[in-house]
This record gives sequence, C-alpha cells and structure tokens, in this order.
Amino acid sequence: MQTAPHNPSPEESLRAANTNFYAAFESLDLAQMEAIWAHDDDVSCVHAGSELLLGWEDVRERWTRIFANAKRVRVALSCVWLRVEGNAGWVVCTERVTTAFTDGFDDTRVQATNIFVRNEDGWLLVARHASPLTSATRAPVQ
Amino acid sequence: MQTAPHNPSPEESLRAANTNFYAAFESLDLAQMEAIWAHDDDVSCVHAGSELLLGWEDVRERWTRIFANAKRVRVALSCVWLRVEGNAGWVVCTERVTTAFTDGFDDTRVQATNIFVRNEDGWLLVARHASPLTSATRAPVQ
Repeated sequence: MQTAPHNPSPEESLRAANTNFYAAFESLDLAQMEAIWAHDDDVSCVHAGSELLLGWEDVRERWTRIFANAKRVRVALSCVWLRVEGNAGWVVCTERVTTAFTDGFDDTRVQATNIFVRNEDGWLLVARHASPLTSATRAPVQ
Repeated sequence: MQTAPHNPSPEESLRAANTNFYAAFESLDLAQMEAIWAHDDDVSCVHAGSELLLGWEDVRERWTRIFANAKRVRVALSCVWLRVEGNAGWVVCTERVTTAFTDGFDDTRVQATNIFVRNEDGWLLVARHASPLTSATRAPVQ
C-alpha cells in the first residue's frame, strides 16, 4: 500500500527554503546561491554590519566576494521563527556563523530576518537583513 | 466642483504607515506606538544592537522602557525603499536616530526593515529589525 504523498504546508515549504539558503551559504557555490534568490531590481540585502545592497546585481556581486574570501562556512541556527502571509513569508532566526579564512576565522552570532516571496516554482528570497549580536572575534591560526 | 478623492495605492498607504511608525517613535507616547503594531504573539522586534523580542507583550514592554528613558527622539529617514506582496509589505530604510537623555544624547545611524500586514483597518507593523550602521556616540551634556 502506498502512502499518500505529503503535501507540505506553506510554513513547511518556507522553512525548507530557509534551510536551503543556509545550505547554499555553506556550499560557497554561487550557482546554489543564485537559485535561492529572486533576480530582480527589488531584492535587498543587509549583511551583518554592512550597508544596504539593493538589486540582484549588487547582491550577487557581494556573494561572489564573500565566497571568494571564505575557505569554509558553517551556520548553526537557533530560535527559528517564521510567519506566512499569502505569498509572502519571513523567517526570523539567530545564526552562529563560523567562517574559516586562509589566515584565521570568525565566529559570530548574527540576528537575521529573511523575507521570501512564493511563485509557481516555490519560495524565493527577496530580502535579507542580518546584524551582529556580539562583536566578531578573529583569531590567528595557531 | 469637487475633486475626486484620491484612493491611495497599497505602496502609498504602506509608506504612510511607515511614516506613522516614526511619528509614534518621536512622540514617546505608548498609546500612539500601540496603534501601529499588531497585538499578537507573532510580532517580532530587534532593536538596534539588541536580542530578538517575540510577541506583543515583550515588544510593548521594551517600548515602555525606551520611552521612559528618552527625553526626546528625532528620526530622519533616507534611502526609503518599499515592496508590497498582497497583504504583506515591507520597508527598508536608513534612520538617523537622535535621542536626548537627561545626561547626554545618542546620534546613531540605523539600518531598518519594517514588515507590515494589511487588514481591514490598514497596515499594522508585525516585525521590525533594526541594526546600527556605525557605533553610537554618547556625549555628556555640556
């Protein structure tokens, strides 16, 4: 007997989209990150401690730089909270971002708000606002 | 001859709701701030440099403290950008927040994302994420 396929709720698919964003972040693969975002002039991104980026071209270019500078990234999420309103949804969560560079590492707690819009292909990230909760530490490699 | 009443677009009414939020902030009047927000367990607020607050009770209590500590607040906005998706809408903007206390003042640039949901009464604020763009300066009163 076959089990009926599970039809995910909007909240479940939004949570999965958010998880996919962090998987793309950890992959350091621009193609994966490109698949997460809407590619239009209306997307926005505030990286932790940085100025606002507006429009996909600027957002994409910054991810290119972030990925070029990092050797490895791991993000552990806590306090994940989400809300869906029609075809818009947002996730509020706390990130612990550990980044390895060639000359050391960062270990930073970040508060994030990720806003997604749903179309026929699923949820696409359209706005991200991240901000550091504690000052970053960058220690030399021992 | 009467002019036909202007029916504001969703973007115009969202912009007005955002303006009303900052007017309530400057008023230091809790009743005005209460009228801006949805009053449910799903609202969230990250004040600049602070941890996430979840639920109207915690959000309201923090505004009470902010208003009790400030003598006067002025917020100048720049780079105001907004987007509407159905009954959800969000505003991304840069704030210059000048706060006078009894013993000095803060002058801080803040990046903000304010998310609103529209019901029959108009747009209500449901999520705010603010983060400092530069370190705050607090100078003694001369």
